[in-house]
Amino acid sequence: MPTYRAPVEDTLFVLNDVLNLQRYNNLSGFEDATPDMIEAILGEAAKLSEEVWQPLNQSGDQEGCTRHEDGSVTTPKGFKEAYDAYSEGGWMSLASDPEYGGQGLPYVLQSAVSEYIISANMALAMYPGLTQGAIAAIQVHGSDEQKQKYLPKMNTGIWTGTMNLTEPHCGTDLGMLRTKAVPNGDGSYAISGQKIFISAGEHDLSENIVHLVLARIEGAPEGTKGISLFIVPKFIPDADGNPGERNGVTCGSIEEKMGIHANATCVLNYDEATGWLVGEENRGLAAMFVMMNEARLGVGLQGLAISEVAYQNAAEYARERIQGRSLTGPKAPDKKADPIIVHPDVRRMLMNIKAINEAGRAFMLWTALKGDIVHRSQSQEDRQKADDLMGLLTPVIKGMLTDKGFENAVAAQQVFGGHGYIEEHGMSQFVRDARIAMIYEGANGVQALDLVGRKLPKDGGRALRTFIEEVNGFTGAHRDNEKMVVYTKPLRNAVKALEGATMWLMQNGMKNPDNAGAASTDYMHLMGLVTLGYMWALMAEKSLAALDEGANCKASFHEGKLATARYFMERILPETQAHLARIESGAESMMALDAEAF
Amino acid sequence: MPTYRAPVEDTLFVLNDVLNLQRYNNLSGFEDATPDMIEAILGEAAKLSEEVWQPLNQSGDQEGCTRHEDGSVTTPKGFKEAYDAYSEGGWMSLASDPEYGGQGLPYVLQSAVSEYIISANMALAMYPGLTQGAIAAIQVHGSDEQKQKYLPKMNTGIWTGTMNLTEPHCGTDLGMLRTKAVPNGDGSYAISGQKIFISAGEHDLSENIVHLVLARIEGAPEGTKGISLFIVPKFIPDADGNPGERNGVTCGSIEEKMGIHANATCVLNYDEATGWLVGEENRGLAAMFVMMNEARLGVGLQGLAISEVAYQNAAEYARERIQGRSLTGPKAPDKKADPIIVHPDVRRMLMNIKAINEAGRAFMLWTALKGDIVHRSQSQEDRQKADDLMGLLTPVIKGMLTDKGFENAVAAQQVFGGHGYIEEHGMSQFVRDARIAMIYEGANGVQALDLVGRKLPKDGGRALRTFIEEVNGFTGAHRDNEKMVVYTKPLRNAVKALEGATMWLMQNGMKNPDNAGAASTDYMHLMGLVTLGYMWALMAEKSLAALDEGANCKASFHEGKLATARYFMERILPETQAHLARIESGAESMMALDAEAF
Repeated sequence: MPTYRAPVEDTLFVLNDVLNLQRYNNLSGFEDATPDMIEAILGEAAKLSEEVWQPLNQSGDQEGCTRHEDGSVTTPKGFKEAYDAYSEGGWMSLASDPEYGGQGLPYVLQSAVSEYIISANMALAMYPGLTQGAIAAIQVHGSDEQKQKYLPKMNTGIWTGTMNLTEPHCGTDLGMLRTKAVPNGDGSYAISGQKIFISAGEHDLSENIVHLVLARIEGAPEGTKGISLFIVPKFIPDADGNPGERNGVTCGSIEEKMGIHANATCVLNYDEATGWLVGEENRGLAAMFVMMNEARLGVGLQGLAISEVAYQNAAEYARERIQGRSLTGPKAPDKKADPIIVHPDVRRMLMNIKAINEAGRAFMLWTALKGDIVHRSQSQEDRQKADDLMGLLTPVIKGMLTDKGFENAVAAQQVFGGHGYIEEHGMSQFVRDARIAMIYEGANGVQALDLVGRKLPKDGGRALRTFIEEVNGFTGAHRDNEKMVVYTKPLRNAVKALEGATMWLMQNGMKNPDNAGAASTDYMHLMGLVTLGYMWALMAEKSLAALDEGANCKASFHEGKLATARYFMERILPETQAHLARIESGAESMMALDAEAF
Repeated sequence: MPTYRAPVEDTLFVLNDVLNLQRYNNLSGFEDATPDMIEAILGEAAKLSEEVWQPLNQSGDQEGCTRHEDGSVTTPKGFKEAYDAYSEGGWMSLASDPEYGGQGLPYVLQSAVSEYIISANMALAMYPGLTQGAIAAIQVHGSDEQKQKYLPKMNTGIWTGTMNLTEPHCGTDLGMLRTKAVPNGDGSYAISGQKIFISAGEHDLSENIVHLVLARIEGAPEGTKGISLFIVPKFIPDADGNPGERNGVTCGSIEEKMGIHANATCVLNYDEATGWLVGEENRGLAAMFVMMNEARLGVGLQGLAISEVAYQNAAEYARERIQGRSLTGPKAPDKKADPIIVHPDVRRMLMNIKAINEAGRAFMLWTALKGDIVHRSQSQEDRQKADDLMGLLTPVIKGMLTDKGFENAVAAQQVFGGHGYIEEHGMSQFVRDARIAMIYEGANGVQALDLVGRKLPKDGGRALRTFIEEVNGFTGAHRDNEKMVVYTKPLRNAVKALEGATMWLMQNGMKNPDNAGAASTDYMHLMGLVTLGYMWALMAEKSLAALDEGANCKASFHEGKLATARYFMERILPETQAHLARIESGAESMMALDAEAF
């Protein structure tokens, strides 16, 4: 059975050393996030993840969710208790607004915690994960009354949330959605239609479920400009705010999926269900985007989290499984064979994952910190810069970290040889679970288009300039640092490839938009590699400094960082050149064929 | 539900135009393989695959195999009838020795047929696939008596075969195997031990199962030099050659796997089962290698075959699913949205797969033809050259085509968006089935080591020289051909990268074998890319010639080839440079960490 240990030491390195969180203690909520407090919180989160959530991961996959004839859904054995331990522990509201029962701690800390719980049990983590997205949407776009009615219940985890976008005939293209909303005359609406792929859409973990539903008000314009967002609670809150009348929304079926079996993916049928408008009429997409951006970071985190737990199990297996001898002579002569971790090709797989995970964690937390700055900084300039970077890099986090997360889960499974293919060892589940993260919340191709078509040209390319200036500033500042050159030189080359690709896009993407589309996925990965390279350079700087200061007790930790940073530069970053070559080849060869020729 | 159409036109192009099979009609068996005959055989194989085998693929996955209390195993509904249609159609023995009931047709033709039946139903195709491997091993290493006793029954498909290598504590490292063989005094042996991961190990498709089992004769040397190969039939043939007494081999359990659910992966317990030595004592590995090499080509074919069927379904979905508008303006203005095949990023995924599949098919058949030359040519020189190339490229076929096959199945699933994650659409099954091909018959890392550590240095590097001379000869001959330069120039660059990598290996791999291990997977993929590039250049030459000759009715076929060839050169071949950079970075960064630091 697979195991998991939360990488607390590594998270602390990123938060304290790399991001230097203490520097931000003028931001609200950060004053409470002292190093001791952070360590205590991460320690508790690790305990919950390792001891309560992880042991249910495999049994949850095997058992799955069950829909009963009355439309109710039962989650796997133990899930309710594990969810209660989470909500009673106050984990749902770690970073929520204190005015509505939240603890107001930094979002970056919540992100660190989320990684652990997702690694431990991704399917279970989706129930609170979607709730946090719904909280964010109501927090930003809801009326005061709505906030007072829903947020305290959701922040405690007594109620959960969902997001309802997809319909059978439309996913990416929400302009085609048909679910309709008819005014009831009392300020509420009657919502009718069918939504599919609704994660956590029906279950037995919470006393109420707050559905956030996109629908079209009667007479609204066609396309995306006629979509509004509604709150449709499963039970309509009564005068005291408790669950009252059952609303007209039912789970018609749950999907049989490749993975995340323990999360109920529902078809939800709305039959004149009572809903309340969130924000303005016909501005539903904007409101939903708050939730989607939050969700996209959460999905990126899923890529990282599954990659991490898969890696840990592969590393352990590689240390224990004996098979064959080292190419340079026996390393365990007392045994019948050497542990397979002596083989370079096994290490190649492990190092690839390790190098992506540790930089991915830094990237994730670096971006989450931007989120805190956006919402809490007093400085308009800081807020704008952080908002630019977060907007630019959210699709990269979602698209790149989930592509890599899946690839890494597959590689970790490969380390197990034939045993990796047997469900019992749990590696198959990691692969099956990780697969969905590349698809939902906007398939990765859609993320790439968002990056190239929307985020890049926005404000005359300001966000990208900010990003490149920051990276170039860092490499420039270390130009004469001999110890850093092994990291900064490859990074500088990668930035040049990104600049070259951007230039090519500017010259060719306007002329023919298909050139931008054809370049988009490669561009997203190119930018992701540059970002991870930047993270490695930042980490290397801190580890070199720590070693110079003689941090003896942690020397091996920092030496490991430097070796992994070097591996990343030598073995992963060269991929940037292939991305650039592909981008510069343009759209012609890919658009040449008629649809029928495929 | 997924569909499948055997790519007969494409196979015929490779066999007739690219390989010019008629040129080989002096080889035995080839005289019958006239173009008409080939087309008729492929047409029949297509029918069997599309109409009989494919409709059972998804139901077979859902139902899986069932082991009963007595150790017997039932295959899914319809499998017995579909298997009978195959064996009664004479498909098992297409290329087998006519002396033992085979039809003696070219192996290259059998390979073409195998692709279709694997695409249609991979789990079912494994039952005859393993039988063909067992036939090959007995054909080469069995005694006359053994051949007469077993081959006619196996060639008709009345009996099937298996290969038994793996034990719980040893897979790759067969030197550790413990299954023992004690002489019975009558020429037979009593075989005892446990074998795991035995595909098609027990089932209800055939009246007898011929297990080929590796075991250690009492008193044999330790390690791989003390391993012998035995025939252990499930039912011992009686005097008339019919199944007699039940032998002491039983299925202890079947594995719950990620995919290929309809193939029974068995734990087989041998309890003094009667077995007969195949070939010489202690030379079992050599005998088993005949089977393994055949199996490795078959597994490479699985990579191609699943990639092909997944591609077909993705292309169809992309033509039908409407969502969003083309970046260059509506393409289907009469509809609410354009089919998603208008989007460059969707085409990118499809073109990647198409470009790998069509070259992979050529590579597969090109190599299979070498197999025919090895066994049937009168010319010693031709035989040696073919044997060199086949030995060199078998690990590349297995390792590269299965890595790509899985990657392609994942990409095809991605085209379906959220629907791809739902089991109903069948894309998940392709991914889950394709996954095993990277693992069994020697995990892909082992293939890479076989290539770099064994095949490359063999005979002073003769095989690689032969290969590179052939490719350089082709590009050289077309140096002044303006129309070919778009294909030959990138290919020439890729060959240079391969030469550079080889040089680096020669200089650094001897000095430190870990450098060879660290380079192996990248080297395997680099060589695979060069080979696929060579196949595209060969195909482009034929398509250009056909268009020049004014092959009007097939113009769009050949134009499609040229566009796809160009796509391969521009979008896939640049990867060679990243492989070279990684290879040249050496082993240092990957060997730096202690095992405990992972």
